[in-house]
Amino acid sequence: MNLIYYKNIDETLYTGELENGLKIFVVPKKGFNKKYAFFATRYGGCDRRFKLGGQWIDTPAGIAHFLEHKLFDMPDYNALAAMTASGASPNAFTSLGMTGYLFRCTDTFEDNLRMLLDFVSTPYFTEESVKKEQGIIGQEIRMVENNPSRAVSQNLLKSLYKNHPAREINIGSVESISKITAQTLYDCHRVFYNPSNMVLCCSGDFDPESIYKIAAEKITAAAGEVPERDYGEEEGPLPDRVKFEVQMEVAQPLFAFGSKISYIDDGREWTKKLLMSDLACELLAGDASKLYAEMYSSGLINRSFAIGTGSLPRTAVVLAQGRCSEPMKVVERLSQAAESFKVGAEERALFDRLKKTSIGNFLAGLDSVENICHTHAEGHFNGCLPFEYLDIISEITVEDAAAFIREAFSLERLAVSIVNPINKG
Amino acid sequence: MNLIYYKNIDETLYTGELENGLKIFVVPKKGFNKKYAFFATRYGGCDRRFKLGGQWIDTPAGIAHFLEHKLFDMPDYNALAAMTASGASPNAFTSLGMTGYLFRCTDTFEDNLRMLLDFVSTPYFTEESVKKEQGIIGQEIRMVENNPSRAVSQNLLKSLYKNHPAREINIGSVESISKITAQTLYDCHRVFYNPSNMVLCCSGDFDPESIYKIAAEKITAAAGEVPERDYGEEEGPLPDRVKFEVQMEVAQPLFAFGSKISYIDDGREWTKKLLMSDLACELLAGDASKLYAEMYSSGLINRSFAIGTGSLPRTAVVLAQGRCSEPMKVVERLSQAAESFKVGAEERALFDRLKKTSIGNFLAGLDSVENICHTHAEGHFNGCLPFEYLDIISEITVEDAAAFIREAFSLERLAVSIVNPINKG
Repeated sequence: MNLIYYKNIDETLYTGELENGLKIFVVPKKGFNKKYAFFATRYGGCDRRFKLGGQWIDTPAGIAHFLEHKLFDMPDYNALAAMTASGASPNAFTSLGMTGYLFRCTDTFEDNLRMLLDFVSTPYFTEESVKKEQGIIGQEIRMVENNPSRAVSQNLLKSLYKNHPAREINIGSVESISKITAQTLYDCHRVFYNPSNMVLCCSGDFDPESIYKIAAEKITAAAGEVPERDYGEEEGPLPDRVKFEVQMEVAQPLFAFGSKISYIDDGREWTKKLLMSDLACELLAGDASKLYAEMYSSGLINRSFAIGTGSLPRTAVVLAQGRCSEPMKVVERLSQAAESFKVGAEERALFDRLKKTSIGNFLAGLDSVENICHTHAEGHFNGCLPFEYLDIISEITVEDAAAFIREAFSLERLAVSIVNPINKG
Repeated sequence: MNLIYYKNIDETLYTGELENGLKIFVVPKKGFNKKYAFFATRYGGCDRRFKLGGQWIDTPAGIAHFLEHKLFDMPDYNALAAMTASGASPNAFTSLGMTGYLFRCTDTFEDNLRMLLDFVSTPYFTEESVKKEQGIIGQEIRMVENNPSRAVSQNLLKSLYKNHPAREINIGSVESISKITAQTLYDCHRVFYNPSNMVLCCSGDFDPESIYKIAAEKITAAAGEVPERDYGEEEGPLPDRVKFEVQMEVAQPLFAFGSKISYIDDGREWTKKLLMSDLACELLAGDASKLYAEMYSSGLINRSFAIGTGSLPRTAVVLAQGRCSEPMKVVERLSQAAESFKVGAEERALFDRLKKTSIGNFLAGLDSVENICHTHAEGHFNGCLPFEYLDIISEITVEDAAAFIREAFSLERLAVSIVNPINKG
């Protein structure tokens, strides 16, 4: 494996790649008790239409998540139970752009790593077990559809995008998953779980070379074609729909509003833009800003208010959310403040403090083996590794952030999603 | 400060006590970026009736949580905003038996520690700000009351206990908090935030002595009387109410069922009983058990199923919970398996693995400065410090666990709480 030493944070990253294209990252953490492994494929809820062998293929919404559930079934055992019995805490999740399988343990790391690599790379589905899973996931979908916090975010994405697959709920609908068959699962596994579309990240107190050896021993499949993905026609800066209101069982209105961040097809530049967006949000209306204090003390917002950036495959959103009695007043106050935002001495001083906090949060994240593995997988798929972040943050200026604020929170670019209490009238 | 070196886990605990009784714990973590401080009082949602100067005093439900919210107000600034501006991430929470104030940071630890000690020990309330907070917390209460997961747990406690204050929701009701005045807050602060009722726990890469010095400089109040608390008449082993069913907006029934664990007035023995209860739950129906596999594969339970122990002031509950279509079948199957539970070779082997997993989880927890501080505060209030856990776990036998299972999950001791979907008929 190759070694990169990051002097400014005193961390070492080992990188390796198998002949079949599987990428391996190891960050040793001396003295840690916890050992963590994260095996991920660049395949998430948004990857529903892709080109393979020159053909465009459409798959049902929710397929990546469905496949994640089913992969734990091995022909003769259940991987979740086996790894739990072997002293690990295994789990998995599917986001919009990635599916990740993971475990944490203190001893028996190598045995569990073998099991992880085995079950993720062994597809095994029967029509009967697929049918049963449709029932289980169907219930999960109904729970999610009933959840006001999920609804308010999902409706914001539906309003912002005209074409992007993030419009659809990540785990699909009861109707969409009813179209999944064992064959669809085998096909998608073959395409997206091919080693050249995957990454293995490990962190803990162990020898990087032993991890490389185990990966080479277990992942012997040939490299496959990495499919081209279709995330829909390019989107303009304006939202598809300005306002999306629904009624649900809530005590107080829930709101989310924000705008799209236009994509840059360069890993480092894109990462810089997202980090800048985070800083800009804090500068405008974070906990330490004047605007936050003003809105809080006037009772317009409460501690549920949050502002930040959400990264999606090949796009991102900047958004504010929370619960309050008059959401539209928050939208107006915030966009007004944004459109007239100017950099004075106070803003400059706050921005310097925010950069320091951001660096502090980044360093604090290095104490967590989970965080190290997840950010390396994401960073790899986005083309910019996390240990570069400190350098990138130092390049961001307050003027950049101010320009971003004025644009991103201008009224014409915003979409607003609200969940109102049911009018019992 | 005094030093205890725990050889089996290679950790050092520094302990100290100011003359006024404030207890201080510091666990240095060499090489960590994150620094964490946790300042807690043994005062939570259950401490509503207490004896002081020979008099029994009653306070409204939700007062500890209300006081937590208000303490961030200083005469001339808001502590949350000030610490955020100074590069820390501050927060607070109120549980049934404790209120804790905390921050995380990487630099500027000492400045932030001074601010933390300052604002927690400085009561400042006006009738106007109390009125305003009643509105804010009133909204929080309505959110919580509307939450099906909270409802199913709270209704279980209501069913199990006849007298214990855990019956009431930790943050009170709109009605109970309406009785809080600035004077009530000053009184409760004086009683429960006196140094002899409090503990300061810090973990990170720093010198323990400097923390002691800052505490001695900032916490100069005299020791107060530690009040005697009334948690209601002693409870028998049987539940007050066998079944509690309500209807809410859920897609699928939510359930929680369990029984009371009788209290032992000895810190080490009580801790041993709780650790044993955790192991017993895993042995009977945890992820790695035969019963779990059987119930899961027959579709009776899904991955939402969980079983474990909940610790409350001077009592505890053992409980199983989750979502499924036929909760009563889960209750029957589990209590049936518990009542006829026998220790064979398989159970013995599983128990050994579970002990190893439990030790692994404990060690993994030592990588987290947050976890170290929280468990030391809790351990101090319960009379048994966490670094003793490994010794205690090794003493627990599978026969103890089996006897516990047969008793705790016997049908007559169980209460069942269910949230059903609203019948739209």
